[in-house]
Amino acid sequence: MSIRTDLALEQKELNPDKTDGIESDETVLDDIKITRIRIKNENGERTLGKPIGTYVTVETPPLTDSGEMNENAINAVSKELISFLPKGLVLVAGLGNTSITPDAIGPKAAKGILATRHIEGEIARSIGLDDMRPVAVISPGVLGQTGIETGEIIAGITRLIKPSAVIVIDALASRCLSRLGCTIQMSDTGICPGSGVGNKRAEISKKTIGVPVISVGIPTVVDAVTLAQDLTGHECERTVNPRGAKMIVTPQEIDLLVSRGAATVSMAINYALQENIDRETILGLI
Amino acid sequence: MSIRTDLALEQKELNPDKTDGIESDETVLDDIKITRIRIKNENGERTLGKPIGTYVTVETPPLTDSGEMNENAINAVSKELISFLPKGLVLVAGLGNTSITPDAIGPKAAKGILATRHIEGEIARSIGLDDMRPVAVISPGVLGQTGIETGEIIAGITRLIKPSAVIVIDALASRCLSRLGCTIQMSDTGICPGSGVGNKRAEISKKTIGVPVISVGIPTVVDAVTLAQDLTGHECERTVNPRGAKMIVTPQEIDLLVSRGAATVSMAINYALQENIDRETILGLI
Amino acid sequence: MSIRTDLALEQKELNPDKTDGIESDETVLDDIKITRIRIKNENGERTLGKPIGTYVTVETPPLTDSGEMNENAINAVSKELISFLPKGLVLVAGLGNTSITPDAIGPKAAKGILATRHIEGEIARSIGLDDMRPVAVISPGVLGQTGIETGEIIAGITRLIKPSAVIVIDALASRCLSRLGCTIQMSDTGICPGSGVGNKRAEISKKTIGVPVISVGIPTVVDAVTLAQDLTGHECERTVNPRGAKMIVTPQEIDLLVSRGAATVSMAINYALQENIDRETILGLI
Amino acid sequence: MSIRTDLALEQKELNPDKTDGIESDETVLDDIKITRIRIKNENGERTLGKPIGTYVTVETPPLTDSGEMNENAINAVSKELISFLPKGLVLVAGLGNTSITPDAIGPKAAKGILATRHIEGEIARSIGLDDMRPVAVISPGVLGQTGIETGEIIAGITRLIKPSAVIVIDALASRCLSRLGCTIQMSDTGICPGSGVGNKRAEISKKTIGVPVISVGIPTVVDAVTLAQDLTGHECERTVNPRGAKMIVTPQEIDLLVSRGAATVSMAINYALQENIDRETILGLI
Repeated sequence: MSIRTDLALEQKELNPDKTDGIESDETVLDDIKITRIRIKNENGERTLGKPIGTYVTVETPPLTDSGEMNENAINAVSKELISFLPKGLVLVAGLGNTSITPDAIGPKAAKGILATRHIEGEIARSIGLDDMRPVAVISPGVLGQTGIETGEIIAGITRLIKPSAVIVIDALASRCLSRLGCTIQMSDTGICPGSGVGNKRAEISKKTIGVPVISVGIPTVVDAVTLAQDLTGHECERTVNPRGAKMIVTPQEIDLLVSRGAATVSMAINYALQENIDRETILGLI
Repeated sequence: MSIRTDLALEQKELNPDKTDGIESDETVLDDIKITRIRIKNENGERTLGKPIGTYVTVETPPLTDSGEMNENAINAVSKELISFLPKGLVLVAGLGNTSITPDAIGPKAAKGILATRHIEGEIARSIGLDDMRPVAVISPGVLGQTGIETGEIIAGITRLIKPSAVIVIDALASRCLSRLGCTIQMSDTGICPGSGVGNKRAEISKKTIGVPVISVGIPTVVDAVTLAQDLTGHECERTVNPRGAKMIVTPQEIDLLVSRGAATVSMAINYALQENIDRETILGLI
Repeated sequence: MSIRTDLALEQKELNPDKTDGIESDETVLDDIKITRIRIKNENGERTLGKPIGTYVTVETPPLTDSGEMNENAINAVSKELISFLPKGLVLVAGLGNTSITPDAIGPKAAKGILATRHIEGEIARSIGLDDMRPVAVISPGVLGQTGIETGEIIAGITRLIKPSAVIVIDALASRCLSRLGCTIQMSDTGICPGSGVGNKRAEISKKTIGVPVISVGIPTVVDAVTLAQDLTGHECERTVNPRGAKMIVTPQEIDLLVSRGAATVSMAINYALQENIDRETILGLI
Repeated sequence: MSIRTDLALEQKELNPDKTDGIESDETVLDDIKITRIRIKNENGERTLGKPIGTYVTVETPPLTDSGEMNENAINAVSKELISFLPKGLVLVAGLGNTSITPDAIGPKAAKGILATRHIEGEIARSIGLDDMRPVAVISPGVLGQTGIETGEIIAGITRLIKPSAVIVIDALASRCLSRLGCTIQMSDTGICPGSGVGNKRAEISKKTIGVPVISVGIPTVVDAVTLAQDLTGHECERTVNPRGAKMIVTPQEIDLLVSRGAATVSMAINYALQENIDRETILGLI
């Protein structure tokens, strides 16, 4: 049975006995769980299907209908990101297609990131941003709508503005409905080829971009075949629908799930990037 | 195995041998298939889980990325609706929650219906509508947002404006991913209790409203457990997700599917309601 | 020079010397100004072009780009509404066309109102709403899209659910760009014929509906001719544009202005309707 | 009296007697008017406040409520663009802020442009695009949200993909309400510093980008002071509103005006870029 997932955490659950080249630990903090997985060598790469690097997953309780965000999750994601980030200008890129709700979480989160690269000293001081970090934010769109690979655009902007690191925000696939929208995976390895929702992304990493690429991913879809196998414990008799397309599904409450997930990620990234700025000031500027 | 579906067509497929009280025929017309099912007695009601009446399903080829609508489908739905409709004022109601994409197809279709009840003789003539049928259109919202049952609102408006019939447009559940967005079910029995996406609707029928209720439904969701059983041929080990909620899913391309489905239904209803008006005139007024 | 305005406050500014039948007082509270105007007789009606009744206007500082709402304004509006409201079930109606941004403030505000009429005792208790007031919420649409007068729909729903009062939320015209989106007028006289943005509304008042109608209006548009006369002190040479249409304009930042205004009104109405419920509980349920 | 306008046509109307360095001619074609203005020298530059180059304006009848677009306008704009365009890859950039309706016409039009740069020979052939021109499309956002000058982003992408020309689509200011949304100005001079709606754009031209820049602009706003002076024939007594901000206004029907304007421009650009492709094929792919 082939299970589709972009989460290192789930790949590890699927391979409980293969531990060579894989280190991991878990922390539970009130209502959230933080799992840190380190892939150390090629055996680990093969087992988890991901390149050498660190993968941190923050799992939060499922979304309720309440309007409030989970502060513990924001703080945990923010803290992990700080440990990944070098000093200096950071470029944040929200990947995905704004016309496909489950793929829109990247651009939606990017809208909530405070861009500061253009704010000059005097003005910065006057609005309480004198200790700010310069930040640039783009939503490069998708190949089918732009005719340009997302990675090419990010590489082009990186050459132009020379950030010390890039953060890419992306929608992911999980094997598990209950993780959608309430799980956040961070990694220092960027975007692996072939992962992601919708249009398969090409690799976006230090190798292709030239500076460290930190990925922040939120699962918003499940492969229908994976879901069926998981729920029944049996293999699927057919793996594509009659029209030959992959069957990728998402919960009916996808709109709420994407809004809430994007807001959580935006806040966490803002707090990580501007750790020297008062949170009230940041909130007042977004 | 319990299979969840709101389509009479699928209930019949699930019970191929029980034919008492059920009549049906199929027509294939170019790229579309029309299935007409008549439930004649209580045995038929029990077998298909639906009240005595007529259920017509128009199945169209799956949506492509092309911007064009299927004219055959529009014509077929329109023709069937004409046979259901009495003369005189019709009230069209788009059911569902505009904030939940797969449940929003009703209100979205209602937006595309030409309201004419308020257009007076002289003005009607001047815009080419002198032979028009009076039409009123509402989107009553959902209980959780209004505090009022959808059926109560429709009954209240019906008492007020006294239409000769009500058309309700609603999102449905299918057992089958490939039918979502490209299948349209019409019936002269209104809305059955408990069907529909999202908030379960209460009954909306001639019995509760006082005038004939014609339902037009488009499936936009699948129950995850039904999907899993269908794909694997095995029963599910668990039937709710860990947080205890029903698992209802929808394809990732739900936005396109809802837009296209709503547009198809709007056009078909407009052409059926205004069969004496030139189609160009109708298109120019929407 | 004819100046178009739906604000009693501005009508009074235009007629400083005519005081017969008009009482008024002003309160300044930190950064907001509350003006209370009472029209006592027919002379007052003629001077201000509005029926006998009370008109309270809360003026807040102009919107900044900051994400925060003005708490003083919410509290002031809430307090005034409490004084207008009888006990028991209230029906809130958001008037206007969701497809025209400056006319959409009513439906947008209605989306933020907590509907509670359908919440039963046991469930109400479990979510902290045991002392709640029953509330129903509708967005009746506009005549051109429904074929039914807004007032007819409200009357029909009122007959159905028998509220003790109706609150109607509507977009207004001001003479003054700087008041748009940051002024809120409340009145116990309902909607006057001919006021409002977009489609002229018919009267919605105790006389037509049968129960007290409290209006909450936010100006979002200015008549271009009024604006021109105000800015130059001279009459306009032409009063319609070449295509014969009225020229109604709105600031380019209309989207922000409508979102912020709607959110302020929603919060104020929620706090007024549910004055016995903890504000945190209300916020968690919206 | 200072009149604000981004249209060469209106600058010329304001200076009827200054003809040195300015050539112009008009064509009327059914219901549309095409004005071609050529600025030939520095005197012309000074008179019209624009750089040496060609400015073609297509004026269409005002928008009606009908859903149909003006085919004459699409054809006229398309034909003019063909005369501006070199052979080879073209980069189309939709300028403006998607959160401010009147400034969103550029990104909205960009969404309707068929990107083809990524479509390979075999696939291109199979979908009827074997004679297509390669096209890339971006919506670079605005400085306040990205921290990067729009012009910098376009220059960066231009260096990356090396187009033979860039088309920039932008919202403009007109002096005249009746021209909003139904006038399209094309020019071979790119974007002049300081023009445009919302955030003032920096220059985007052959000088700054390195390849020819063709601008396509649609007016969507009017300066309130300009409007007032135009309507009354008198100067304004105050030129900013009390909060010190410029007063830029837009008609209340801005949503419709932007949708229709963007769709017209998209179609015209698609037909110009893909003049060797059947129009039906283009429509089917968008």
